[in-house]
Amino acid sequence: MYKATVIIKLKKGVLNPEGRTINRALNFLGFNNVKDVQTYKMIDMIIEGDSKEEIEKEVEEMCKKLLANPVIHDYEIKIEKIE
Amino acid sequence: MYKATVIIKLKKGVLNPEGRTINRALNFLGFNNVKDVQTYKMIDMIIEGDSKEEIEKEVEEMCKKLLANPVIHDYEIKIEKIE
Repeated sequence: MYKATVIIKLKKGVLNPEGRTINRALNFLGFNNVKDVQTYKMIDMIIEGDSKEEIEKEVEEMCKKLLANPVIHDYEIKIEKIE
Repeated sequence: MYKATVIIKLKKGVLNPEGRTINRALNFLGFNNVKDVQTYKMIDMIIEGDSKEEIEKEVEEMCKKLLANPVIHDYEIKIEKIE
């Protein structure tokens, strides 16, 4: 069994309205030293398989087919063996 | 300047409909070896301040006041010094 973690970020230059809103809200609450906020999505998956390389390829395919939008998203994949 | 990363997870036992939906969609697309999917939110903040301890306290307060819902969320905080 493997645990795959995918972090999905907005590409550089793509506006992050959620981050902007959190930033403003924090400033409004008195946290004036917050200068920038970026938000990401993290997906943890438990996957059955034999080799790390095989799982990595599959997760890459999942990102392309479903998890990320290649127009606006970059993604990072980490694979870890678990019991 | 510090970079604070907050990971917001659903508490154990709280249903994650988004994860469930992604799991089903992946199975439907032929990735039948995906057994469980959990989704989290990650927030990166650039914060001005003098000490790591002070920033950590402040971010803890931000989580309580705005970022997380204590009824359903657990959170992890990581602080890192940057230039």
